[in-house]
Amino acid sequence: MSEAHSTQGSYVTGGEFTRDTHYIEDRIVADPDAVTASAAPTGGTIGNPSAGLSAGATAWPVEAGRYRLVAARACPWANRAIIVRRLLGLEDAISLGTPGPVHDARSWTFDLDPGGVDPVLGTERIQENYFKRFPGYPRGITVPAIVDVPTGAVVTNDYPQITLDFSTQWKAFHREGAPDLLPADRLDEMIPVIKRIFTEVNNGVYRAGFAGDQAAYEDAYNRLWTAMDWLEERLATRRYLMGDSITEADVRLFTTLVRFDAVYHGHFKCNRNKLTEMPVLWAYARDLFQTPGFGDTVDFDQIKKHYYMVHEDVNPTRIVPAGPDESVWLTAHGREALGGSPFGTGTAPGPVRDDERVEAGHNPLYPA
Amino acid sequence: MSEAHSTQGSYVTGGEFTRDTHYIEDRIVADPDAVTASAAPTGGTIGNPSAGLSAGATAWPVEAGRYRLVAARACPWANRAIIVRRLLGLEDAISLGTPGPVHDARSWTFDLDPGGVDPVLGTERIQENYFKRFPGYPRGITVPAIVDVPTGAVVTNDYPQITLDFSTQWKAFHREGAPDLLPADRLDEMIPVIKRIFTEVNNGVYRAGFAGDQAAYEDAYNRLWTAMDWLEERLATRRYLMGDSITEADVRLFTTLVRFDAVYHGHFKCNRNKLTEMPVLWAYARDLFQTPGFGDTVDFDQIKKHYYMVHEDVNPTRIVPAGPDESVWLTAHGREALGGSPFGTGTAPGPVRDDERVEAGHNPLYPA
Repeated sequence: MSEAHSTQGSYVTGGEFTRDTHYIEDRIVADPDAVTASAAPTGGTIGNPSAGLSAGATAWPVEAGRYRLVAARACPWANRAIIVRRLLGLEDAISLGTPGPVHDARSWTFDLDPGGVDPVLGTERIQENYFKRFPGYPRGITVPAIVDVPTGAVVTNDYPQITLDFSTQWKAFHREGAPDLLPADRLDEMIPVIKRIFTEVNNGVYRAGFAGDQAAYEDAYNRLWTAMDWLEERLATRRYLMGDSITEADVRLFTTLVRFDAVYHGHFKCNRNKLTEMPVLWAYARDLFQTPGFGDTVDFDQIKKHYYMVHEDVNPTRIVPAGPDESVWLTAHGREALGGSPFGTGTAPGPVRDDERVEAGHNPLYPA
Repeated sequence: MSEAHSTQGSYVTGGEFTRDTHYIEDRIVADPDAVTASAAPTGGTIGNPSAGLSAGATAWPVEAGRYRLVAARACPWANRAIIVRRLLGLEDAISLGTPGPVHDARSWTFDLDPGGVDPVLGTERIQENYFKRFPGYPRGITVPAIVDVPTGAVVTNDYPQITLDFSTQWKAFHREGAPDLLPADRLDEMIPVIKRIFTEVNNGVYRAGFAGDQAAYEDAYNRLWTAMDWLEERLATRRYLMGDSITEADVRLFTTLVRFDAVYHGHFKCNRNKLTEMPVLWAYARDLFQTPGFGDTVDFDQIKKHYYMVHEDVNPTRIVPAGPDESVWLTAHGREALGGSPFGTGTAPGPVRDDERVEAGHNPLYPA
């Protein structure tokens, strides 16, 4: 999740940045009666593709048209949900609201929408929808969040669970040819991979950037690069993280990689090298970027504005760097030589809906 | 010069960083009687290889052993003087004092020396030597500065003039085989080159990093990269900026290039690309780095500490990035194919004196 305020929902202890992992852990499921019977926990850092409900949580029913995904394009955790929704073809079943990149201390806001109001929810800030669920909600006002449109109340902001549930619970609404992002025969291998990617890479860049002292920073930096070297090696012989087709693991790695040189390299001091200097990972990242459903969800302009303008404790001037050149994302990657096919036995999603297109000039796929 | 405080001796107007160009413009010259008769100005942004004295300035006599160059290795303007002193072999004639990288608001300090005191000047901070010259000196306490050892008073901190005078006024003390850094037949061409390098590159990175608003930053960024592209083209067919041998122009460009990826790329948001991504300039910079007198004066550890710990307005956490990897500076550059010889008809300087060696681990030439 990306929090509305960089210290809200997280804290620094002994110099180390620690992400708050307490969310609204309700789920939207295919069969609420079945799932509520289970006592297995969900949530946590990577979600659970099969578990029941956390104590005190509620199961909501899958229902096309009832829910709205609120996901800022700037935020890597929200970007995951935008990608998975599109890969699975859930656009007609679950609508999308997109807060702008530069929220204030209170909340992400719908400042990009006409009149500064989300056209479906009628709110100016997602905080209002959190308060409709829990008046005075005291934890982080984060995206992604799924809102129950009839009541305007947030159902869940449990980001690691949201994308898993899109795969497992919304099957009835998947498009024809939707890829299987959670192949049953790879789950046992995939869980440790996405866990390591979460702790060392997805969250690793934040641990480096928000470190409270030099020692905590250097520890985060070393952990990050150890993991990046592991990924460079793992992907040298595999087209995708789990083999011949894309999975949830690739989505989770992609959203960090696509922000790496634009933000994490300089702003978060993850500067052993640029992504473009790691031949395998850079080719892998471009392969995904050029695959429908990945790069077409990315708004570099919003990404850079978000980090550089919101984190005033890191960048007091709020000046947004003009570089780097993003056209390199469209260069040939040569990963076809490894074989495989992104969608396995499925097919690529069609063109992005007109009303969900990234703004021209914010992505080399959409020139100004 | 590098100032003791990032706002001292410079100011921001309309968002644009403006460097104060007022210095103590005394000169140390071979013939004080001849030079004081001239009314031509010195100083300014690039110095003057032939002029007389500014109004009110004094000419001091060249005298071996009398003066001490105070030059922090961290500072690019001071680094120039360290390089030229070594290229010309002036080590025996002019001693060297090296303040540490992290000064306080008052002054650069001799914190690296035993007891925190310069062993020749006996002062803890160069500010004391400025005050011996002008009690309560109100302008920037900058390095490089040349101090008259007998009185402990600063003679000049006019950095663009200092290196020119090393070449033109200290000839009697040059080593045998010293290169001609100001070849008479190239001066007319060299002056506009070093002027453009000063305004667009040497000072250009500061204009980007200290810009007060987005528009001023983007203007500085665009000017910088226009000049970098010009240099990339100019050096494609020339081994060095003025042709087949090194000159003052190369020294002035080198001190910015060697700091580029370590500091300016991230800290000053000069991030269109890294220096390592410009094939010609990167090979040129490595060629110089590997030439005796250039790379052996560079302390990457001090450079990074200086910028990241002193500019709290840019980097409030004062955390120093661990990257990038500096071993790449020793890779083959292939510039010999362009012909030329760094020292022309002269020779390379000998090994660095033991007491002036960069600390092991701070430069790939001196492994930890």
